[in-house]
Parts: sequence; structure tokens; C-alpha cells
Amino acid sequence: MKRYEALAEEIAQSIRTGVMKLGDRLPSVRQASTSRGVSPSTVFEAYYLLEARGLIRARERSGYYVTAGAKSLPPEPDISSQPSGDSTNVDVSQLVFDVLESLKTRDVIPFGSAFPSPLLFPLQRLARSMASSVQEMDPWSTVDDLTPGNAALRRQIALRYLADGLHIHTDEIVITNGALEALNLCLQAVTRPGDCVLIESPTFYAALQALERVGLKAIEVPTHPREGVDLEAMALALERHKPKACWLMTNFQNPLGSLMSDEKKQALVELLTSHDVPLIEDDVYGELYFGSKRPISAKAFDTKGLVMHCASFSKCLAPGYRIGWAVPGRFTQRVARLKVTTTLSASAPAQAALADYLAKGGYDKHLRQLRHALSVQQSAMVQAVVRHFPKGTKATRPSGGYFLWIELPGKINTLEVHRQAFSLGISIAPGPMFSAHRGFANCLRLNYGHPWDERTEAALTTLGRLIAANMEAKRE
Amino acid sequence: MKRYEALAEEIAQSIRTGVMKLGDRLPSVRQASTSRGVSPSTVFEAYYLLEARGLIRARERSGYYVTAGAKSLPPEPDISSQPSGDSTNVDVSQLVFDVLESLKTRDVIPFGSAFPSPLLFPLQRLARSMASSVQEMDPWSTVDDLTPGNAALRRQIALRYLADGLHIHTDEIVITNGALEALNLCLQAVTRPGDCVLIESPTFYAALQALERVGLKAIEVPTHPREGVDLEAMALALERHKPKACWLMTNFQNPLGSLMSDEKKQALVELLTSHDVPLIEDDVYGELYFGSKRPISAKAFDTKGLVMHCASFSKCLAPGYRIGWAVPGRFTQRVARLKVTTTLSASAPAQAALADYLAKGGYDKHLRQLRHALSVQQSAMVQAVVRHFPKGTKATRPSGGYFLWIELPGKINTLEVHRQAFSLGISIAPGPMFSAHRGFANCLRLNYGHPWDERTEAALTTLGRLIAANMEAKRE
Repeated sequence: MKRYEALAEEIAQSIRTGVMKLGDRLPSVRQASTSRGVSPSTVFEAYYLLEARGLIRARERSGYYVTAGAKSLPPEPDISSQPSGDSTNVDVSQLVFDVLESLKTRDVIPFGSAFPSPLLFPLQRLARSMASSVQEMDPWSTVDDLTPGNAALRRQIALRYLADGLHIHTDEIVITNGALEALNLCLQAVTRPGDCVLIESPTFYAALQALERVGLKAIEVPTHPREGVDLEAMALALERHKPKACWLMTNFQNPLGSLMSDEKKQALVELLTSHDVPLIEDDVYGELYFGSKRPISAKAFDTKGLVMHCASFSKCLAPGYRIGWAVPGRFTQRVARLKVTTTLSASAPAQAALADYLAKGGYDKHLRQLRHALSVQQSAMVQAVVRHFPKGTKATRPSGGYFLWIELPGKINTLEVHRQAFSLGISIAPGPMFSAHRGFANCLRLNYGHPWDERTEAALTTLGRLIAANMEAKRE
Repeated sequence: MKRYEALAEEIAQSIRTGVMKLGDRLPSVRQASTSRGVSPSTVFEAYYLLEARGLIRARERSGYYVTAGAKSLPPEPDISSQPSGDSTNVDVSQLVFDVLESLKTRDVIPFGSAFPSPLLFPLQRLARSMASSVQEMDPWSTVDDLTPGNAALRRQIALRYLADGLHIHTDEIVITNGALEALNLCLQAVTRPGDCVLIESPTFYAALQALERVGLKAIEVPTHPREGVDLEAMALALERHKPKACWLMTNFQNPLGSLMSDEKKQALVELLTSHDVPLIEDDVYGELYFGSKRPISAKAFDTKGLVMHCASFSKCLAPGYRIGWAVPGRFTQRVARLKVTTTLSASAPAQAALADYLAKGGYDKHLRQLRHALSVQQSAMVQAVVRHFPKGTKATRPSGGYFLWIELPGKINTLEVHRQAFSLGISIAPGPMFSAHRGFANCLRLNYGHPWDERTEAALTTLGRLIAANMEAKRE
């Protein structure tokens, strides 16, 4: 944990335990810096994080105050999941498709969506980049930009890694149709049907679908809602199951929002490397941090070319363009060839447009606005959950991304809630979507990637009542 | 065989056998129509086809004449391939990648390329469609255009089928990242590792790579250079191997250029349907016909939803956009779901741009120009093969597409020729790329999709000398 994170956690603790109460003013940045012996910027970053989590709020020229909601914030779930430890044949697709189908209607309030609102993206600026790059496009680029992909785009991606301290060579980058294809190709590059693969519990349902499609077995590793995958459990699973790969998310895991610390990422890579097991790192949410700095990728600790890092522009810049990439380490050629034989290449105009956009600048400014919007929306949603969900509800407060993971008290089946909510024009992502063994029946994932307004507030009220009604029914 | 095709074949025969000689004038359309008892349009279509094949040429206001080249045209290969009939584990990828790698340099004369020249496409008109559609794009289209794909584009595709007499409902169309993805998804939808799949011999190497990647066994069916796959051999293979699918090209097969007659297509569909075996129909070259009318697809004879028809815009309109589609009959939902779990969706801007381009009109005009360019280039290449290749060389004269299949006399290894030619800046596609059993060592595929000029003529001269030198060496 970084110094500012530790400080933020300490203050959050004071608020939770009632040491600091609603309306209390926090020490000024200068005071706190002196009293704690940390730099002013550390204090500022801690306050920024607390604000993003909805615990404090700045009043202009007056300092930071504990916000109205703080006292009554729901507790965070704080116990790692407890999957059985056995390998599981995956069969989740039908369930996932049923839920995804419910998201295709625009009228539905998209709490179950996997995407942030398209209104948060610089679509007009991208359109200008598209228009100018496609009009200037060299006809031969339709051949040149075939896999591994547009050279200018790969250079821009490498430059961004470099700015974050990560040295990735342009030749190590394979452009794909979104991160999903990158992840699937990496998985295929290192496994054969029947192999075991380590995944988180709960995990992104597309990982489950990928395993199911190619006949792989899932080993679900307990995962902590804030700190990520349990390394001790993973060490045991590595011994017991001899998996051929590990597929997980290091930054703002979907659905939990967990963020692994740098130390933990390093330990993860060392552990897997000692077993010669490739890590498929899904890092699509890394840019959506609410803190002061992009969290590092596990790829940064890769010494043997065993980390197959995957990312995309779909969640942070250009949804619908379907441009992602893989940095597959020692498996780069294998992944590139799989790409050629399955879909040949990514769309040339989309690649050129993104290369142009990135070269012209403005991406970082957009990202700052997007992160701010998401953190404000998280705060609004957490407050609304407090107001409208039953007592005993637990909710994560991730420091990035756009998902809340909700743990409901008592016995309840969120699959049932999903069906009822959909008939009322509200979508949710029920917990069992995220598990090979259909666990997490009392959990759901909520998307706060959409601007908060009266309509969403009303929908969350309805959802809360629906949940309460289902809990009543179970008790009777 | 259509009436005009029969007439064209009859006239071609007269030319080949010397009944009609170089410079002879053909009967006028009216004369021929009266003497043969066919409609004037049938005569016109037959002449058009003969002209496309380089056998006759129109002189303005004067009629049609047997062209200079006709007398000395190389014979066409006319015996079906003779694969063993056993199933083969496919292992061709390394070879194919070696050859594909050689195509990535712009300086190379691309006789081995799989694409026509990008200069033949309306890239500026497409760019305008891209610019306007992306600037008007509804932000929510990034969600709406997810698989099965942009509704306007699917409607335009359905309208084109309708114009050709084929009733395809918009909902049956799944937009993919090029036809290659469509074909791969269809294959996965109906097979499991270890299954047998019927393919042509020779066949498109991507089919071999797809089979290899997912662990399927290939049954190679003899295929005639002009008439396509041998249905008797296929009937035997169906009995003997119980294949789970058949993957082939009905129109202008790659690499042979063969075109199955309507009757044969119908018989093919009936044969496969009687064994309940799905047909994966790769129809990416169907629009590139030199005759008067688009050849029909096998899909037209599908009564049970067993034909999984695949096509794209990559070969006839927008290379690099990577937009193709599948019409998978009764497997539509399965294919759409595989698409969602592997690459989620095709690029939204590319879909919108093509929908806009097609709606604005101009596609048919472009296609007419493209077909004309290709037929002229075929003629130029055939003549050049006559001039520069060893005596005894056979060459196909397909009535569409942009590939010649060349059969060299005597013992020669075109893999060796490929390596030597590449070191001289010339690429070819050697025969063994197109076979699971590494056959066709004395064959090669030449691409005539690039404008013919002195440079290409010189390259073909060099290639001819190289082949002659290799044959000399073998004899010694």
C-alpha cells in the first residue's frame, strides 16, 4: 500500500468508527503534513482518494469535511470468497447471454451494463481524427496495417507505457479486436482442451465463457474485495492442479473493483514464474484510477516474458472501435499468428484514427475528466445504496473503474431479482454470472459508469424495494 | 451450365481446335441469335464471357474478333486433383506463415498476394462515407451496433441478396471481422476437436490453418479446375468418414478459380443435406464475376438451414475495414454467441461507413469497373504466361476472381521457386500451401489483381526463367 493510501485508509477508519463525525472538518493539508510527517502531496492524494470514495467533500476556500453520507456508508465486504478449490467444468454461457440480452434495450436503466455511458467519451474528437486519417490513408496501409497492426498506433501505445515507466517495445504489441480477443488469443496460445486455468472468484464472465468454449477447467482462487487474489490459496492451487495459465485482473478487478498492491503484483509474478505458469493479465481498467497515479501493471515485474498483458481503448476512449492489444512476452509470435488465422487483423481505419487521436494529444485531459466523472458517480451510487438498500447490505468502494460489488444480507437469489428488475426496466448483473460454480447468489454488480440523475436514483429506489420484497418472501 | 456459358464454351472449343483462327470475325449478335435459336442477350453474354477470358476482342462498330493470343493460349488443367481420400492431421501453418511473411514488403511484385491492388478500390469515396457517418454517429450506436451488428448495414446486405433473388432476413446476418472470422465461427459452431471436415483439394490455406488450430481432421475431396468439387468423391467421403462439416468455395474457388454450375450447387446442397452435414460456403469472390450476372450461391438451395454462407467486403470494396458476415441458417444464434465471446463485435465506425456507402449508391458502378480491370489483367497475365513460361505449362482461365492456377510440366518444387523468386523481389504462392498433404509441388497460384505494367511483365519473365532453370536442374 502506498503512503497516501495508508493515510486515506487511516482516516476512513476514523470516520467509520465514529472518531470523526459527519460535518467534522479535516486538518488542512499543511497541518496534516506536519503532524503526520508526510509530504503535502501525500496528504492531498489521500484526501483526493477519500473524496472519490464519497467520505469527505471539499468546500471552496474552506477545506475538507466529513460528508453527510460518511456516517452511514455501508460496510465494505471484507472477506475473500471461498471457492471449493476443485476444478470445475464451466457452463455459464446461457446464464450470461440471458443477462446480456436484457442490456440491449436502450430504455433499460443499465446498472447491469459492462460499459460506461458512451456520452463520457470524446466521440466528436475521435470522429475528426477518423475523418482526417481515413482521407489521408495510404492505400497500401490496408496491407501494411495487417497484424501485428498499425505501426504508428503501436508506437503511441508503447509511448504511454514508457510514460508510466514500463518499457514495451513496439514489436511486442499485437493489435486486436478489443481486449477480449487479446485475452482469448493469449489463452489459446498457452493451453489445450482439458487443461486447468487459475481464475479469480468472482471473475469476469467472459473469462468463464472463454474457458467453456475451448474446453478448459477453471480453478477459482479466493479473491479479496479490496486486495485482490489470495496468493497463499494460489500457491496451493499451483501445486495441486498444475494449471497451464492464470487469467486475472490486477487493477480494478471486474466485478470486485479490487486493486492489487505493487508488492502483491510482484509476488504474484514471482510465484507464477517459479511454476513457469504464464499470467494473462487483463488490465482494461488500469487507466480509470481515482488516485493520483496509474497503478502499475504486473507486466512491470515480468523478467521471463511470462506475463501476457492485455488492454484496450474500449473502456476509456473509444467504445465500439474494437481496438485492443496484447503484449504477450515470449508468446508474441504465437499470439500474432493465432490472430492472423482467426480474424486476420483489426480494422485499419479504427487503428489509424486512434493513432491520430493519440498523436494529437488530449487523451490525458479526457482521461482526467472521465476519472472525475466516474468517481463522482461512484459516490452518488454508494449514497443511494445506503438510502435504498436493506440494512446489512455491504458495498465495495473501489478506487477506480465503474463497478460496485454488492453483498446482500441473508438468503436471496439475485438471478430472481434480475428477472424481476428487468421486467421493470432495470438491469443488474447478478452474482452467479461471475462464478463457474454458480456462487454469489446474494451478490450483484452495479455499473456506476452512467451520469447520475433522478431517473437512476428512482431506479435504484425501485431496485432496493425489490430486494427487500424478495428478502421478506424468503423469510416467510 | 447456363445457355450463354454453353454457347461460350462451344465457341471457345472452335477456337482451341483451330476451327476459328486468329483474326477471324465472329458472327454478329443478330446473326448468331438467329442461327443458334437463342436470344440476343444470350449471345451477348457469351461474347462478354469470351472477351473476359481473353479469347475474343471487340472492335468498335465492327464486331468481335478472335484475338492474337487465342491460338497460343496455354491449355487449361482439366483433371481433378487426386488426394488419397484418407483423413489428414493438418500441419501447414509454418509453411503458410513463411510465405505470408514474404508478402509484407511493398517492393515485392505481389504475384503471391491474397489481395487485389488497393488502388482498385474506391478508398476516397469510402473515406467520405466514413467521415460523414462517424461525425453523425449516435453515441449509443457503440452499444446498438454490437453483435449481430449495425442494423442499417445488415439491411443493405440483405437488399443486395434480394436483388440477386436470394431472400435473406436481416436477423440471419451476423457481422464479423471479415469473412475469415465468419468462416472460423461457423466451423467452431458445428465441430469439436477430432472431428473430420470435408475440404477441397487444393483448398484455401486459411481453411487448413483453421482445421489445424482447432484440431480437426481434413478430408480432401478432388476438385476440378473449372467445375469445382467432385460430387461422387464427396458422396464416398460422406459415407466413409462421417464428417461434421464441409467447407468450400462455390464461386471462383481459391486457388483454382473453379465455378460450380447452378445444378451442381443444388446437387451439392442436396447431398450434404441428405447426410445432415452443414455446408460452410465461402463466397468472398462471388461479386467478382466476368460474366453478365452474379453466380448464385449454394445458400439459394438451402431448405433446411444447413448452409452457413460467409462473405465480406474485403475482396471487392473495402480491404482493411475487416467487415464480413455470416448467414449461418439454423446455427445463427450459436455463431452470434461465439462471436460475442471471442471478439464481442465488429468495429462500429467501419460498419457505419459501409452502411452509408451502400445506401448512397455507387457500389455497382465500382464493381463493374473492378471486374473489368480484373478481366483485362487476367488476359494480360495469361498472355505473359504463354510468352515466358516453359512449354507444357497449363493455366486456368477462371471467369471471375483474381487468381490463376498454374500447373508446371515435369518435376519441379515450387517451394524452392518461391524462395528463389523472393530473393529476386517476386512473390508467388506455391502449390503445397493449398494442401493438407503437401501436394501440388509442381503448381503455383498467381495473383492478377494488380494493374499490369512493364514491371510486372519483367517480373513474370524472370519467374519464367527461374522455373525453366529449376526444370533444367531437375533433368540433370
